[in-house]
Amino acid sequence: MSKSKASEPNVVFIGSKSVMSYVLACITQLNEGNQDLILKARGRAISRAVDTAEIIRHRFVPDAQIKNIEISTEKIERSEGGTANVSAIEITISKKK
Amino acid sequence: MSKSKASEPNVVFIGSKSVMSYVLACITQLNEGNQDLILKARGRAISRAVDTAEIIRHRFVPDAQIKNIEISTEKIERSEGGTANVSAIEITISKKK
Repeated sequence: MSKSKASEPNVVFIGSKSVMSYVLACITQLNEGNQDLILKARGRAISRAVDTAEIIRHRFVPDAQIKNIEISTEKIERSEGGTANVSAIEITISKKK
Repeated sequence: MSKSKASEPNVVFIGSKSVMSYVLACITQLNEGNQDLILKARGRAISRAVDTAEIIRHRFVPDAQIKNIEISTEKIERSEGGTANVSAIEITISKKK
């Protein structure tokens, strides 16, 4: 039995670690029986999110498919004050039944 | 999916130049009356392609919308021999009528 965290579906945030560590995190989630998985990334990590999704479906989870991809712009606070715009991506992966 | 090059719509390849140079190239294409525009990028340029699409629709062309996003894996030849896998993205932008 997997517990759903609040109402949000299973989200993996892609940051600056190695691609393989995110691939592993995603595979773990999918093997726990979660049907849908959302990869979220901002800025330069966007390419890594795409890498992660591609490696999962081509190499490790053949019955995984890309369900949806959305891009957006987020405002982030700069440490020196003011805000900056940063692009973001959300890739939804789901397992075929 | 095989596309014939002749019928291929307007494609802008995103590489390592500044985001704004690609934004300008896309705006020029859209202003020439082209309804659809495809941004293509590979590897680390993927984030730049997302930036380009977001800047176009939020800042310069309010009636532009993201029609489709696809990700894939391409094989590239290494200069030292052998092949490497690289992720790729295709973002289709279209102008609302």
